[in-house]
Amino acid sequence: MNTDLQDYSHKRFNILTGEWVLVSPHRAKRPWQGQNESVSNEVRPTHDPNCYLCAGNTRINGEVNPDYKDVFVFTNDFAALQSNSKSFSLNNGLFKAESETGICKVICFSPDHSKSLADMDIDAINKVVKVWQDEYKLLGANKAINNVQIFENKGAVMGCSNPHPHGQIWSQSTIPNEVEKKDNQQKAYYLKNKSSLLGDYLKQELEAKERIIFENDDFVVLIPFWAIWPFEAMIAPKRTYKDITQLSEKESRAFAEAISVLTKVYDALFACSFPYSSGIHQAPTNGEDNSHWHWHMSFYPPLLRSATVKKFMVGYEMFGTPQRDITAEQAAQRLRDLVK
Amino acid sequence: MNTDLQDYSHKRFNILTGEWVLVSPHRAKRPWQGQNESVSNEVRPTHDPNCYLCAGNTRINGEVNPDYKDVFVFTNDFAALQSNSKSFSLNNGLFKAESETGICKVICFSPDHSKSLADMDIDAINKVVKVWQDEYKLLGANKAINNVQIFENKGAVMGCSNPHPHGQIWSQSTIPNEVEKKDNQQKAYYLKNKSSLLGDYLKQELEAKERIIFENDDFVVLIPFWAIWPFEAMIAPKRTYKDITQLSEKESRAFAEAISVLTKVYDALFACSFPYSSGIHQAPTNGEDNSHWHWHMSFYPPLLRSATVKKFMVGYEMFGTPQRDITAEQAAQRLRDLVK
Ligand SMILES: O=P(O)(O)O[C@H]1O[C@H](CO)[C@@H](O)[C@H](O)[C@H]1O
Ligand SMILES: O=P(O)(O)O[C@H]1O[C@H](CO)[C@@H](O)[C@H](O)[C@H]1O
Repeated sequence: MNTDLQDYSHKRFNILTGEWVLVSPHRAKRPWQGQNESVSNEVRPTHDPNCYLCAGNTRINGEVNPDYKDVFVFTNDFAALQSNSKSFSLNNGLFKAESETGICKVICFSPDHSKSLADMDIDAINKVVKVWQDEYKLLGANKAINNVQIFENKGAVMGCSNPHPHGQIWSQSTIPNEVEKKDNQQKAYYLKNKSSLLGDYLKQELEAKERIIFENDDFVVLIPFWAIWPFEAMIAPKRTYKDITQLSEKESRAFAEAISVLTKVYDALFACSFPYSSGIHQAPTNGEDNSHWHWHMSFYPPLLRSATVKKFMVGYEMFGTPQRDITAEQAAQRLRDLVK
Repeated sequence: MNTDLQDYSHKRFNILTGEWVLVSPHRAKRPWQGQNESVSNEVRPTHDPNCYLCAGNTRINGEVNPDYKDVFVFTNDFAALQSNSKSFSLNNGLFKAESETGICKVICFSPDHSKSLADMDIDAINKVVKVWQDEYKLLGANKAINNVQIFENKGAVMGCSNPHPHGQIWSQSTIPNEVEKKDNQQKAYYLKNKSSLLGDYLKQELEAKERIIFENDDFVVLIPFWAIWPFEAMIAPKRTYKDITQLSEKESRAFAEAISVLTKVYDALFACSFPYSSGIHQAPTNGEDNSHWHWHMSFYPPLLRSATVKKFMVGYEMFGTPQRDITAEQAAQRLRDLVK
């Protein structure tokens, strides 16, 4: 292990975005006098009559949810992107804007209001994976959709307005900032080296072993070298696939197992239902040759040192560079030790 | 006014960073069922014996604060960057890191524990401006320092651990991500057009008048066309200066007035002490020709529709592109109407 990285401030390079993160290992011990988050360990009922995501309930627009048994998908009632929105473009000196159309969906992971991915078994998680694959295929086939962003906001502290287990998909006509950055970096590497940037990185990680949390035959769960959030993690397939539809049956299940292991470990870390935003970055559905893409799922959890103390990405982070205290290696060690 | 921008989803281009923001004006009316922030309208004492920033109190490292009368600067006791830190560089395949040294300071804006910039008079704010100028000059003259980032985190919701009015400076050996982006964009424009990108933009804004909150002889306060946060604002000098030390006496005072007007309007908006992170982006102190720089101060406030409901930059925003509902023009109108 390179001990300089554990002892002195430094910045690390994110090969996927081309940006840096500032790491200040010596600062991990500063006292906390700031805001505490409230933590809710209340046990939720399996069905909540007031929840607009529970089976059989009526949503705000009058639609009634079916009596679904596993996964249920519908178009977001308050979609940020709409498919029938007007198309226009503004190019007035230094004011530049372009219309954006799209389709936003909500995916209920389970009819059971009380659960989260961490409480679901691997088969149940695998059903969610299948729906992600179907939706990527379906939305991606739409000529007006060039990117399909699958994500989940979990926990009130992550702006999640309903604790019912669910995620979202925002699919749209243009390529979002973060996907564009990763597209550029992966393409440049692929053109130069004729191999996958993330694939080569994973091989190096599997040898170094310092940041691995878990692996099975087909997937690696690790803290990326350049992680920003204290316990940020990535799940990536060992084989280079540009999108999740390329997984075999066996690999889909291995992916579901990786999600299960990581979310359980997260919950164990601070003995709470661990909040995070997660998202899958995969090839844009823009009809281009995207062989340089190696898809991966990332988890950005805000908690820093307990269920109630989170990391704030504020002042310096907003105007300068994201900053962390605990190193990626320390975080990986803590999570690895919790794998059952 | 271009009404398409008020009616249909679109993305707007940030000329300073080269990135986009997604705007969904039709979504401003969705109901809020998520987390509410706690709002503290408690009146604080003018001196708090337990505050480590109040005059005469002892800090955690045993140092005693002087009996300061206006502004007080000291080196951060828990600095994320240190000047005597080891220098190293790691270039091991796809693991890339570089040591980072620097100097972090804390600036108390006033000895009065109960105040914020919004409660201070223009002369008192001007004293803070003078200290920012002195520190930029002093730190920038240090050969090991190539960037001086001045910022403030205000409010518990912005990770501020102490309500005593104060800001920070993180100065360092390399150029942070956000400064680098703005450096690139401004330089490219300057080389092409032989004029200032932000200067030209301000002229266009002063003609359009749609996003201006306030102006005096020397400064403009506006919501940038590409603002991300619901009530994000920018204060910029009308003349192109690369850094804050170039302001005349009169201009310094005009800057202090602009800060005063904006912070008062913010407090009036939701009748609370308005939280935000603010920061000054100015030329790096790297000894290069930075004539392409036009310095500016930005405010990123999290509140969305009341003192207790904030905008969450989570899932889609983290994996895709920042997103907003209320348009920059609507936000500017609301703030402009509150200027006294
Ligand atoms: O330095 P403070 O006020 O203790 O800490 C706050 O500001 C820092 C700089 O923006 C952040 O890194 C911290 O996450 C935040 O809590
Ligand atoms: O769609 P929701 O869950 O109501 O809203 C949440 O996720 C969205 C997508 O990340 C964000 O834009 C919102 O700020 C957040 O509160």
